[in-house]
Amino acid sequence: MDFSVDTATDAVTDSFSDTPDPRLRTVMESVTRHLHALVREVQPTLAEWNQAIEFLTAVGQMCNATRQEFILLSDVLGVSMLVETINEAQGGTDSTVLGPFHLTQSPRRALGDSIDLLGGAHPCVVSGSVSTVDGRPVPGAQLDVWQCTEDGFYDVQQPDTQPAGNGRGIFTADDHGHFWFRTVVPSHYPIPTDGPVGKLLNTTKRHPYRPAHIHFLVTADGFADLTTHAFVAASPYVDSDAVFAVKRSLIIEFAESQDTTAAAAYGVHTPFVHAQFDIVLGEHA
Amino acid sequence: MDFSVDTATDAVTDSFSDTPDPRLRTVMESVTRHLHALVREVQPTLAEWNQAIEFLTAVGQMCNATRQEFILLSDVLGVSMLVETINEAQGGTDSTVLGPFHLTQSPRRALGDSIDLLGGAHPCVVSGSVSTVDGRPVPGAQLDVWQCTEDGFYDVQQPDTQPAGNGRGIFTADDHGHFWFRTVVPSHYPIPTDGPVGKLLNTTKRHPYRPAHIHFLVTADGFADLTTHAFVAASPYVDSDAVFAVKRSLIIEFAESQDTTAAAAYGVHTPFVHAQFDIVLGEHA
Repeated sequence: MDFSVDTATDAVTDSFSDTPDPRLRTVMESVTRHLHALVREVQPTLAEWNQAIEFLTAVGQMCNATRQEFILLSDVLGVSMLVETINEAQGGTDSTVLGPFHLTQSPRRALGDSIDLLGGAHPCVVSGSVSTVDGRPVPGAQLDVWQCTEDGFYDVQQPDTQPAGNGRGIFTADDHGHFWFRTVVPSHYPIPTDGPVGKLLNTTKRHPYRPAHIHFLVTADGFADLTTHAFVAASPYVDSDAVFAVKRSLIIEFAESQDTTAAAAYGVHTPFVHAQFDIVLGEHA
Repeated sequence: MDFSVDTATDAVTDSFSDTPDPRLRTVMESVTRHLHALVREVQPTLAEWNQAIEFLTAVGQMCNATRQEFILLSDVLGVSMLVETINEAQGGTDSTVLGPFHLTQSPRRALGDSIDLLGGAHPCVVSGSVSTVDGRPVPGAQLDVWQCTEDGFYDVQQPDTQPAGNGRGIFTADDHGHFWFRTVVPSHYPIPTDGPVGKLLNTTKRHPYRPAHIHFLVTADGFADLTTHAFVAASPYVDSDAVFAVKRSLIIEFAESQDTTAAAAYGVHTPFVHAQFDIVLGEHA
């Protein structure tokens, strides 16, 4: 068979026919078919294809131990969210992206502790429950929580001005599956714009901002892990997250409260902000 | 609109709607649609998507001033050939990939000169004509020619043992559009396998070899540039080029000759190898 625009795809998919791992074979065949379909549709000039090669090379070369520009590219093209959503457990709370600021080691804290180690003037209480899809509590569920400051920076971005572990904590739900902790309301913030992905956003007139959110990674024996956010309903960009991570069900009212009784129970002063985030864990896929 | 597997693609393509450059907008919309279609089809797990990110990162990080691993990836997926073929001039000699060994500065040589600076024992004469699609000669056409040695290495790969410019030359066709030069028959050779693309070939049980070939970049005023190869018909791998660059019309007999008259005219001894490669230049697209 001669090489032509029409025969090219079969020639390449056939070349993968001896792949021992059947999953890898399927993946490489799909990659080939979709990539070729893209090229046939776009009909890039040689100069345009060189630009694409140079862009991807620059993305790879921006990556280092603390920066993953290919994940950022996957994020701004909505692919990270698509993969996350394809893999989410049925019936549970909607999932969203893990993001680059999760740490595998975070401080364990008691229910009610504050994760705001800077002593911010505007206290916020987050409370909620963890339950099964049929409404039974999940006692002992573990909630790994992380967020940025009121100025929009995670602790790891400001090691000189934030104590390690600021904005982070691992909490364990009580016997009724309830949890609560104190914090400050996080800010919206831009994803890193000093690399090729930032240039792409700029050239396409897209803003780099993520709406304010608190990350949750919720785990319990016998249930699927849940990676999600509680989004601050009043935050700018809640309708245009640069990484497409907002799902409507995850937009939570962070409501100002003058309730002195509740404030006393939570150990905060009035006015304080209160957010209620109830979590449902789905079964393993 | 809420984010879901079904709405994701529209959400991302819409985000590019303010792109000032209409071509970039079209390209980013196509990239988004095809990439999302791939993800919906393959349904990668989070671990598999991480593997893809790590692979692309490694490809980028393998690139340096003399190594372009993303072009290699494009090559082994048949995309470089697809782009080249989409852009080839109608009616002319088939085109194929430029490859990584072209130099922008190559030695100018007179017709009949040898590009084999090592004085190989098995001479080869390459001759041919350059003409228009309706058969008129193209006097003064410029032929930039490059090839590897009988051992399969380009001069730039062996700077210690090959003189610079070995296997290279720029020739100018005569008043009848004819050209000829002396050389040795090149060998088949592997593409670089010490990077992530080599690992991919290995894991999918694909060999890394390219069949033996001589590169041509033929240019003349008023005609489309032609990037092509003359493939050695008897070479191993002529049916399974690792980068899919073989087109049937480019497979040329490198035939052994005992013709003492021709040998004398060409300034070689018998037996010698003779290859005839007639080139047709198409119009600009």
